[in-house]
Order: sequence, then C-alpha cells, then structure tokens
Amino acid sequence: MTNTQPAPAPENSAQDLPTLKVAVLGAGTVGTEVLRLITEQGDDLAHRIGGRLEVIGVAVRDMARDRGPHVDPSLLTDDPSALVREADLVIELMGGIEPARSLILQAMEHGAAVVPANKALLAQDGATLYEAADRHGVDLSFEAAVAGAIPLVRPVRESLAGDRIDRVMGIVNGTTNYVLDAMARTGASFDDALATAQQLGYAEADPTADVEGHDAAAKAAILASLAFHSRVSLADVHCEGITSVSSQDIAAAERMGRTIKLLSIVERVPGQDGERISARVYPALISSEHPLASVSEAFNAVFIEADAAGSLMFYGQGAGGAPTASAVLGDVVSAARQRLRGGAGLRESHYAALEQIPLEQLRSAFYVSLRVQDRPGVLAEIAGTLSSHGISISTIHQQLIEEDEDGSASGQGSAHIGITTHRALESSMTAVLDVFSSTSTVLGVDSVLRIEGE
Amino acid sequence: MTNTQPAPAPENSAQDLPTLKVAVLGAGTVGTEVLRLITEQGDDLAHRIGGRLEVIGVAVRDMARDRGPHVDPSLLTDDPSALVREADLVIELMGGIEPARSLILQAMEHGAAVVPANKALLAQDGATLYEAADRHGVDLSFEAAVAGAIPLVRPVRESLAGDRIDRVMGIVNGTTNYVLDAMARTGASFDDALATAQQLGYAEADPTADVEGHDAAAKAAILASLAFHSRVSLADVHCEGITSVSSQDIAAAERMGRTIKLLSIVERVPGQDGERISARVYPALISSEHPLASVSEAFNAVFIEADAAGSLMFYGQGAGGAPTASAVLGDVVSAARQRLRGGAGLRESHYAALEQIPLEQLRSAFYVSLRVQDRPGVLAEIAGTLSSHGISISTIHQQLIEEDEDGSASGQGSAHIGITTHRALESSMTAVLDVFSSTSTVLGVDSVLRIEGE
Ligand SMILES: NC(=O)c1ccc[n+]([C@@H]2O[C@H](COP(=O)([O-])OP(=O)(O)OC[C@H]3O[C@@H](n4cnc5c(N)ncnc54)[C@H](OP(=O)(O)O)[C@@H]3O)[C@@H](O)[C@H]2O)c1
Ligand SMILES: NC(=O)c1ccc[n+]([C@@H]2O[C@H](COP(=O)([O-])OP(=O)(O)OC[C@H]3O[C@@H](n4cnc5c(N)ncnc54)[C@H](OP(=O)(O)O)[C@@H]3O)[C@@H](O)[C@H]2O)c1
Repeated sequence: MTNTQPAPAPENSAQDLPTLKVAVLGAGTVGTEVLRLITEQGDDLAHRIGGRLEVIGVAVRDMARDRGPHVDPSLLTDDPSALVREADLVIELMGGIEPARSLILQAMEHGAAVVPANKALLAQDGATLYEAADRHGVDLSFEAAVAGAIPLVRPVRESLAGDRIDRVMGIVNGTTNYVLDAMARTGASFDDALATAQQLGYAEADPTADVEGHDAAAKAAILASLAFHSRVSLADVHCEGITSVSSQDIAAAERMGRTIKLLSIVERVPGQDGERISARVYPALISSEHPLASVSEAFNAVFIEADAAGSLMFYGQGAGGAPTASAVLGDVVSAARQRLRGGAGLRESHYAALEQIPLEQLRSAFYVSLRVQDRPGVLAEIAGTLSSHGISISTIHQQLIEEDEDGSASGQGSAHIGITTHRALESSMTAVLDVFSSTSTVLGVDSVLRIEGE
Repeated sequence: MTNTQPAPAPENSAQDLPTLKVAVLGAGTVGTEVLRLITEQGDDLAHRIGGRLEVIGVAVRDMARDRGPHVDPSLLTDDPSALVREADLVIELMGGIEPARSLILQAMEHGAAVVPANKALLAQDGATLYEAADRHGVDLSFEAAVAGAIPLVRPVRESLAGDRIDRVMGIVNGTTNYVLDAMARTGASFDDALATAQQLGYAEADPTADVEGHDAAAKAAILASLAFHSRVSLADVHCEGITSVSSQDIAAAERMGRTIKLLSIVERVPGQDGERISARVYPALISSEHPLASVSEAFNAVFIEADAAGSLMFYGQGAGGAPTASAVLGDVVSAARQRLRGGAGLRESHYAALEQIPLEQLRSAFYVSLRVQDRPGVLAEIAGTLSSHGISISTIHQQLIEEDEDGSASGQGSAHIGITTHRALESSMTAVLDVFSSTSTVLGVDSVLRIEGE
C-alpha cells in the first residue's frame, strides 16, 4: 500500500530560519550530551522549532580540560554572567544553588527563557524562580529535574490539567532502587549492595544525597507543587532514607508477597477542615503485584492516580547524561518555539495554596519487626498495647531465635515477631513505639516500615 | 516542618476572568464525562487556564433523550453547524468521518481551536486537518485519540522533540488485550474469550473494528505521523487482527516464555537508500520479561525507544468515558491558554516526509506452527526449505498427534512442529509458506506469528 496523501508542500530549508542564541551553563555529564544532541540533531531541531539553535557559549570552571568532540573549545567561557546577558535561551546544567540561581534570575531579567535540570535549586527555592519567570514573562521549564528522561512535568502540568490528581507515588532515585533491587535479588546487605552499586557507577563516592532520600525529597517537592498547584519546598517534605533497611526486612517483605521501594509520595488528604496535602519520602512495602514493584535496577517509574484518568504509570531512565539531555532538549524545543512566536508558555500557578498535613496526622498501614522475650503472654501484651492505641493487627509472624544474640535477655529465649497493622495514625504508632521502648517485654524494635498502595 | 515560603500573592478570583465559548459536539460516553469535568472542576480549570470555559451548546442527534445530571437540556442542539460558528473552542466527540470533518474544518475557518477524540477521522484524513489548522493558525490537539487517558501525543510531540524516536510499540486497543489476556489466563478459545468480553462490556456487539486490528491501525497511523514527522495514513498501515490466534498459539507462546499481544508498531528502518518507516499492526510474540507482557485486561501501554532517552513506557486506561475525557480536558486547557494569549500552540510538521517501507522488505523473527507427516526425513526437508530461502532456525518443538484429526494424512500419522526462526525477510517467509502449501510433507500451516522486542 502506498501513501495516498498529496506530496508535502515544500517547507523552508532549515538554513533560512531565524536563529536563537543559546547559552549552556556547564559541560559535565548532562551538558556534553546536550551539546551532542544540538549538533547531531541540528537540522531536525530547526524544523521542529522553526528556527536554528546557535550555541553562543558554554560556561565551565576549568577552561583547560578537554571536553570531547561535541564541545567546541572556542565556545568555552568562565564568565557565565556575561554569557547569559547575550542569550535568548539559557540551559542551566551546573547544579548547586549559587551561582546557578543568580545566573538564572539574571537571564530572566534579560528576557531569556531558562531550562534548568537543577532539582536541588528548584526544590529549595522554586517559588523565587517561578515568580521571576512570571514577572518577566519568560519560560521556565525543568522536565529533566524530576525523573530524567521520563516525561512527567509536562504530563502533570498539561495532559492532566483538566483532571484532578489525587496521588503521585514514584521511584525517582535510581541509586536507591538499584541498591534495594540488588538486596532483593542477591540477599546482600545494604553495605555490600551499596559498594557494588558504587563499583558499577550507579552510586556516587559520597552517596549521602541518594541513600538518605534527599534527592527523592527534592523531586517530591517539585512534583507536589505541580500536581497540587501549591507551594511545596524541600523543607516541607518528610524524608527517611534506606540506610536502615536490612536484609531481614527484604526477606520479610518477600515472605509477605511484597517488596521494599524508596517511594516519593505526594497526595491530597481530605479532612474535616478541608483538603490538605502531604509530601514524603520513605522506604515502604508495596505488593509485588503493584506496577511499581517490578521496576528493577536503576530505572525510575511514577504512578499517578487521577480522578478521571484513573491509574497511569510512566517508566524509564531517571538519570544519566543522554536520557537527561533528551528531557532538556524537549524543553528547549518548546521554549524556542514559544520564543519565536512571542510570549511565554505555561506559567506556574499556586492558586490552590493547599496546606501541608503534618506526618503525625497521616494514617498508614505499618509493618513492625520486634525482638521480644520468648514467654507466654508476650503476644497478648503487645496486641493489647497496639489495640489500646487504636491500632488493629492485620497479621503476625513469629520466629524463635535459636541463639540468644545479644545476651540482653539474660538467659531467657527471645523471638522475632513481625506484625502488619491496618491503617493507623502515625502519632499512635509513635506512642506505641514509646511504650515498646520502655517495657522489658520488647527487647528491641528492629524496623518500622509503612505499607503503601493497597 | 512548616511551609517557609511567603504567602502566595492574591490571584484574580476566578469570577473576574475572561470567558471562552465552548461547543461540545456529541454527548455520548465521552461527551457526558467531559461535561461533568467542566462542571465539577470549573473553578480549578479557570485558574489553570486564566479564563472560564462557558459551554454554549451541546450537539446531539436525539434531542429528546435524557443525558443525566451533567448535561443541561437547554444547551442541546441538533444544529452543530450553527453552534461551531459561535465557538472559540470546539470539542468534537461525535465520531465518524462526516459530518465531523466538515464541522471541524468549519470551526477552524471561524478561528476556533479544535479538540477531537476522533481517531478514525485523524487516521484517515489527518493531513487535511493538520493543514487547515496550520492555515488558519488555530490549535488542533487530539491526545484522546491515541491511547485514551495515557499522555502520549504530548510526550511524543513535545517532551521527545529534542530526541530521535526509533520505535514505538504499543498495546493501544483494550478489547483485544482483554481477549488475549483472558485466553492466556483461562485457556479459553478466541470465541469464548470474546463472548465473555462482550458480556463484561469490554467488547462491542460488533467487535470487528477491534478484533480485526482497525482501531489499533488508526492509532498506529497517528503515532507514526507524530513520531517521524511524516504523513502516514490508515491506508499505509499493514494490519492483521487477532481472530486467528488459537489457544494452541497461546499455549505454545507460554511454553517458549513468551506471550501474544496485539502490537501497533511504528519504526524507522535504516537502509542503503536512506531511512524509511514502517507502521504495522499484528499479533506478535513478546518475551514474558518485556514490560509490555504484563499489561493485563483492558489496559493500554506504549513502549518507546529513543536515541537519547532510551526506553520509556507509558501505561494506563486507553478508553472509557472518564479516562478519555481527562485527555480531552488536558487538551482543552492547553488550547484555551494559548487562545487567551493569542496564537496557536504546536503546528504539526511533516518536514521529514519519510517513505514507507513495504512489509515484504522488513525482517522479523517468526514462529511457524505446522502440521506435518510423521515420517523420517520430514524435519530435514523443512529445515532445508527454510535454509534455501535464507531463513535460519532458532528452535524446533515437535509433538506427535495421537489421532489423525482430519484424515487428510491418509492413514499416516501426523505431527505438529513449532519452529522459531532468526530474523528473516518477510518475502522469504512468504516464499517458504508457498512451498509448504504445495508439498505433501506439510499437511497444514496452523499459524505464523512474528516475534518482537528481542
Ligand atoms: N547527571 C545526571 O544523571 C542528572 C540527572 C538529572 C538532573 N541532573 C542535574 O543536572 C545538573 C548537571 O548535572 P551533571 O551531572 O552534568 O553535573 P557535572 O557533571 O558535575 O557538571 C557540572 C558542570 O557545570 C560546570 N560548573 C559548575 N559550577 C560552575 C560555576 N560556578 N561556573 C561555571 N561552570 C560551573 C562544571 O564545570 P567544570 O567541568 O569545569 O567543573 C561542569 O562542566 C545538576 O543540576 C544535576 O542535578 C543530572
Ligand atoms: N468511548 C471511548 O472509550 C473512546 C475512547 C477514545 C476515543 N473515543 C472517540 O471519541 C468519540 C466519541 O466516542 P463516544 O464513545 O462518546 O461515542 P458515542 O457514545 O456514540 O457518542 C456520540 C455522540 O455524538 C452524537 N452524534 C453523532 N453523530 C451526530 C451528528 N451527525 N450530529 C449531532 N450529534 C451527533 C451522538 O448523539 P446521540 O446521543 O443523539 O446519538 C452522541 O451523543 C469517537 O470519535 C470515539 O472514537 C472514544
């Protein structure tokens, strides 16, 4: 079968098109890939934009370092401030708070559209940037800052703009997903899995920002702002990392038909005084049947529940030079098109201004793993403590400990018990853990994990 | 932790905002849900748009029918043509080619933005609509036409605009996925699974458009146009449905660690005479490990491979009133924003004008199931036929048939053999099947399925 459409009308050759001056701040992992795409896809980009991108400079710190075949050395500069004053479009790939923030604000003041991949800055001080973009009538787009290559900002801001997002639950940090997945696959401890991840380049030498959940929390803040049209910054996000997840926890999860993932969760919480929102990050148990459970290695995925759309999931590579550059360039094409047409695209709105609900007031189902004295009546005592705090037990799993590991039980045998609860107030669970810490029946609380998505 | 951002500046109350006149053509499954969302989310939409949507009329055929609480009877009209002349924005939810096409063209001529969910029209005559939108400088957006609630058009058109899409492989028809999934889960025949799907509302009384692959082919045409910036219409799409998929095929797939899905595939095919594109729909075997394999029931999912982004997958509900309405409203919000700001958003570009590669010239791996005479030398003969056509065998699975089912083997025993091949030219496989049909060794060709995604 052949194409029965009329031949396309001849379009302008890409050479005749207007030019947009692009400043690239940073030529590291992402910057070099962005420059590669701009070079290799030049003609395609020109057609899609209706104009050509001309890179007028690339700001770096070290002018001497060789940056490979895609970075023209004559474009390098160590004066980013002079560079942004000349640009129509500024791509910020330096990272960090300063000088990135000042340069972005300066660029906007000069009327340039800005595309930052800088999740740290957006999470910490997004409001300042949104406000400046609005004031100067310029585009600010940051698809790359949330989940790398996965289109997420645009679907949330635009595709779901006619719907009501109730909850977003994402695996948005590749390092921690790699570590947890390796622990589950191999039975390795956290430390060993992390060491392997570092050897393979999935974790940095200093993994703090990833394993402590800070990176995932930054993304949760950005997502919550977009999904709920409210100002949410990093400081608003409750954040727990994965450093205390043990191989025992992983094994217990598997026994329950669940798996442990570091989740960034943002959701609307209805209440008597109106609706509030919650943004939080912690390792949680999810059913092995949940679409997020099968996200392996360093992949990212984001699960969205919306009123009309129902459940949606987006899956892909959340980091890496090329995937992140793909997201950056998508924003660059949109901003460039808008720019040539005059005016800015989407303005960030925080009209809803929903309040945050403190973690203590949330309700979750819990998994609690305890070391207890092995004597009659212990289970009844623990169940009684939970019940007196309004927490009802869903399942109990008990296991005798052969050897008395720490001697603290002074000759008595001890046992592990794993309890899952129905949904209960965080503050009630905190109170219960206080009781456990002061009773001789409970020798130790090994872990407390929330159960999500059920 | 509390929100440390300054209190949001007071924004205009939604009442003071400018108004956009909206015409809704059709008040069926999707139309009533669109009207529900416009009513229920009115204030939110107004904030997101910066203007209010005012529904000025709803076109239907039957003015007398009750359409539930979300359709104001006083807005009903059976004169859609008069309605579109008054509108700033036309939502087309009637379906079919005419009068939908004429009404859309008329609306654009009057300067209205148009949001159709009409996949049939877009696939058959998208080029005419794109061209008209371009000529009149109005927005034409059709997220709902491809995969219901799943944001796909926007990610492909915008998020990946700076990347190079190599291949899109989608499950974009919920009915056929439901039927194939039911066959795999229960061992049911195609007819029984289809009957169940009809009872449960997953298949229409006349299921032809779904089971013959026409609906999936329409979506493939739209996707190929967007992904490759080339004109592709329904007539260009090679299309095979699922009616001949047997429970034996499903069982054989499972034995091989694979599953059968109806796939819409659009891809770039590099070649000596430059790059061409292919758009096709057929039931294919994919590995059970492939992310598309676990898409169950009537869900849709689209898997995209791009140069820089790598693999992406989008998953969600591909049909149904509310999910489709969500996608429609997302487009409405974008179009309305653009409209208030003056000018149109994205213009469809077909600059690449890539040619189609005919199916015969494609290379695929195949699964072929044959009924053969059960005598020595048969396997060697079949292997020889394949090899003389340049097709090399990957695996062979043989099974003796206890009873001579059709008598055609005249007293001789017969056997089933299932062969998988390495990648081979479609035309070579056609030639081999011709040979098989003329030799007495092969009693019948039960099925030929392609293997994808490996
Ligand atoms: N890498 C990823 O996978 C990924 C994914 C999503 C988002 N991001 C975000 O993308 C941004 C860039 O990440 P990256 O991995 O490409 O970082 P990187 O490899 O460390 O590169 C940073 C670049 O910025 C330059 N730079 C830093 N401070 C500067 C200053 N004060 N003046 C001039 N140039 C300066 C550096 O110059 P020198 O080369 O001279 O030191 C370097 O070229 C960050 O915001 C990051 O969070 C990264
Ligand atoms: N349903 C889905 O899940 C889904 C998903 C994706 C895309 N879509 C697309 O969305 C569109 C609408 O689908 P639907 O399921 O909502 O269809 P539907 O339930 O059959 O509704 C069609 C509506 O259009 C009206 N209509 C039809 N022809 C008309 C004419 N000549 N003049 C005036 N009104 C006319 C009908 O009026 P009466 O009520 O008076 O007959 C009815 O209200 C189709 O293009 C479909 O392909 C649907």
